[in-house]
Parts: sequence; structure tokens; C-alpha cells
Amino acid sequence: MNAEGASSSEGSVTAAVLVIGDEILTGRTKDRNIGYIAEYLTKMGVDLREARVVPDVEAEIVEALNALKGRYDYVFTTGGIGPTHDDITADAVAKAFGVGIDEDPRALAMMMERYRPEDLTPARRRMARIPFGAELIENPVSKAPGFRIGNVIVMAGVPSVMQAMLDHAARGVRAGLPMRSETIEAGGLPEGIYGDALGKIARARPDVMIGSYPSFVDGRFRNQIVVRGRDADKVSEARRAIEAMVESHLSDAKPL
Amino acid sequence: MNAEGASSSEGSVTAAVLVIGDEILTGRTKDRNIGYIAEYLTKMGVDLREARVVPDVEAEIVEALNALKGRYDYVFTTGGIGPTHDDITADAVAKAFGVGIDEDPRALAMMMERYRPEDLTPARRRMARIPFGAELIENPVSKAPGFRIGNVIVMAGVPSVMQAMLDHAARGVRAGLPMRSETIEAGGLPEGIYGDALGKIARARPDVMIGSYPSFVDGRFRNQIVVRGRDADKVSEARRAIEAMVESHLSDAKPL
Repeated sequence: MNAEGASSSEGSVTAAVLVIGDEILTGRTKDRNIGYIAEYLTKMGVDLREARVVPDVEAEIVEALNALKGRYDYVFTTGGIGPTHDDITADAVAKAFGVGIDEDPRALAMMMERYRPEDLTPARRRMARIPFGAELIENPVSKAPGFRIGNVIVMAGVPSVMQAMLDHAARGVRAGLPMRSETIEAGGLPEGIYGDALGKIARARPDVMIGSYPSFVDGRFRNQIVVRGRDADKVSEARRAIEAMVESHLSDAKPL
Repeated sequence: MNAEGASSSEGSVTAAVLVIGDEILTGRTKDRNIGYIAEYLTKMGVDLREARVVPDVEAEIVEALNALKGRYDYVFTTGGIGPTHDDITADAVAKAFGVGIDEDPRALAMMMERYRPEDLTPARRRMARIPFGAELIENPVSKAPGFRIGNVIVMAGVPSVMQAMLDHAARGVRAGLPMRSETIEAGGLPEGIYGDALGKIARARPDVMIGSYPSFVDGRFRNQIVVRGRDADKVSEARRAIEAMVESHLSDAKPL
């Protein structure tokens, strides 16, 4: 893990998300897993550093896995572990790790809680195919498990199933020091008005990350400024500096 | 473009999306641009093959751009072209192309439609910094333009602004032969019941792509099967075969 050593050098815990599925890339299904996992990991103090979406093509999944698992502490995949022919994630993960894959009696046992033996069609048995050496991840919703091998955590694509699996998988994930985050409402004050002063504040405070986030609502921009960092005092100090800066611009804009 | 030649070998037009912004990776902002661009390109017959989300870190943006622009016909980026210090996309794109970047009089002229000269703060002038050799992309919402250089199309992150830019940028994008898509409602019929038969249908029809998409609503799975392909007759033929297969399973399940 962290072959390049870049991401954990500050002692942080890093992760990537790999979303697998043609349906996301055609726009038929709108991904909701990246945002959910992002919020979840942020609360755990794990820094999500990258997300990728790839199609149901084995070579593409393997290539993305190899790129991400060497670079980040954890890789969370969603999608492609169901019973149909287009569910090829488990095979791709086995290939990326260079291990075999076969029906796993532990996975079958979990599935037997839901299916009668005569209902275990060959398609359903596909869901019990797990790469050698993987630990299973429980699926309280529909029983067919996810799994973890090395630093890769393989989950379903259906959001409610993925979310239940993530609760289980997260127990085995090293938590980081949570990132503190404070939000300053700049309201209707334009970014172009406070941008120079905010840049100065940011450059003077390399230990915190400062972002400015516009949204466009009812024909007007509304802006929020966010300070993030692991040192609560430094985050608070930056927040106060930004609040004072915003306040001074607001009073400039509305002379008495 | 298509240095590897993989993606256009069948004469299709391919694309990737690169979403740039810390706020997506912390989960603070939920991305809506990948899904929108995916649907938009699909309607144009352009195949979206990959999407990535990277943070506001120049080296990461440059690396992703270099990976994607060599591999796909087009790369659409969103985010990081505003007036604040964390907006670094234009500089990263210039670096990826190995060209200079400076304030562009054409971009300034567009911005002057919105701003009085005295309102052109240094922060706002940052939005007129455009890599050498780029064409501008109009921004009817807030004037500061996007741009296109080579096969990379650079747009804003705010969805309404991105969408307006995409309408403009799409005029310069080569359309592909639209993908035909037909959906078969499998309803409550479980994937595990039809999975084997569907796999057989799919293997016999390599010219179409067949996917099975479960969703979990009110404690039950509801499934849809989607056939996609560029030959309408082959898509229809596959759809009829799948409908007949689903129908036979439904009558098995409900004997008279």
C-alpha cells in the first residue's frame, strides 16, 4: 500500500472510490455512492483522494484497481457483484491481486439464510464466488456478501445494500484524525470581491485548506467559504480571519 | 488523441469526464455533473468511457488530464475556474499541454459585458487567464468563459453554469452514431432467477450490450434489463428474446 508514499506522508489515512458500471457512464443511473462514501470517510477522518467510474469491462476494472490500490490506503469499489453476466467485479479483483477465485462455502452459507437450496440457481451461486484470501463483508439486506482483499473493499452498487456493507466494512478500516471543518456564510457577497483577500488569508495559513464554494440559486450566486484542517485552533483562527474579512467587505458594500 | 487507439477502433466517439474539487471528495457537495454529462453525451452518440474526481491539487489534475486526453477523443472537465485561490484548473490544463497562460483579451471582453471596469478586481481577472491556443466557451449565465484546448473542454463546476457551457461546447464535438437503448421491465422477478438465461442470451449476441439493473425500493428489489447497441434491428431482436425469456419465467412462477 502507498507504494508512492505520497498520500500517507503526513500520517493521514487515504482512500479512493471505484464505481463500476456501464449504467453510470450512460447516465441511466445517477451515482449516489461517491457522495455517500465521501461523507462517511470524512467523518472517520479518512481522506478520500480520488474517485473513478469505469465500465463493466474487465481490463478497465483491473487497470483502475492496480492504479488505486498501490496509491491509497484503501480502495472502496461499488457495483458488479450481483448474479448476472455483467457482474464481473469479483473476477477482476482476483485478477488484479493475481489470486484464484472460486465458490466460497462461507459465502454460500450466508446466502442459505435467504435462499432455499432449490433456489440457489447457478446465477445466484455466482454471487458466492470470492477471490482466495478475501474476508467476507456481511450484507444484512440481501445476504450475498461483499468482501475485502488486501486494501480493497468490494461492495454492491445498489445504494441501500452498499450502505449496509459499508457499516460492516468500516469496522476494519483504520480511522484517521478527523478533519475539522468550519463554514463561513458569505451570502450574496461575490467571490470576485473577496477572492483577493481570501487568497492572502489562505497563503498565510498553509496548515489549513480553504475553499470557496458558489452555488447558483434563483438566478443569484450564494457563496460559502470552508476552512478544513486537523488542528482545531488553526481552523478556528482561520475562520475568525475570514469572518472579519467578509464582515469588512459587507460594510464596504453598504456604507451608512 | 486516442494514442492507444483502443476506444475509437469501432468508429465510435469516446469521452471522459474529470471533476475537479475538494468539495466533492469530502462529500460536502454531491456531484451532479457526471450524470448530466453522461446523459448528454449518450444522446449525442458519444460514449462516456470513464469519469474521475480529483482534488484541487495541481499535480493530480495534470496527471489525470494527461492520462485521459491521450486515451479518449474528448475530456470534459468541471470545476476550478472561478476567481478564488483554490481555482487552479486553467493553470493545470496549460501545464498538461505544455503551453503558457495569460490574461486573454477576448475573455476580458466577455466579462466586461457583466462587470464595470472598476469591478474587475484582480480575483475576477484571474478568470480571464486562458492557456495559449485555447478557444473560448461562452458562459451565458455569468460571462466568465470556459475554454477548449486540443481535445480538452474546460467548464465551470456550478451545475447551471456547466450546463450552459456544455450546450455551447457541444457544437464543436463530433457526434457519434447514437446508441439505441431498450428497457425491459423484469419487475419483481429476481435477477437470480433469470440470470442464467440472460447470460445465454447475452453471449449469443456479442453486437449488443445487455445489462441487468436492480433497485431496492420499499424492501424489495425491482429489476430492469437494458439492451444497448448501434444496430436498431439487433437491439430489437435482443429485446424480443429477453421479453420472451422474462415472460416464460413469470408464467413458471405463477402456474395456473
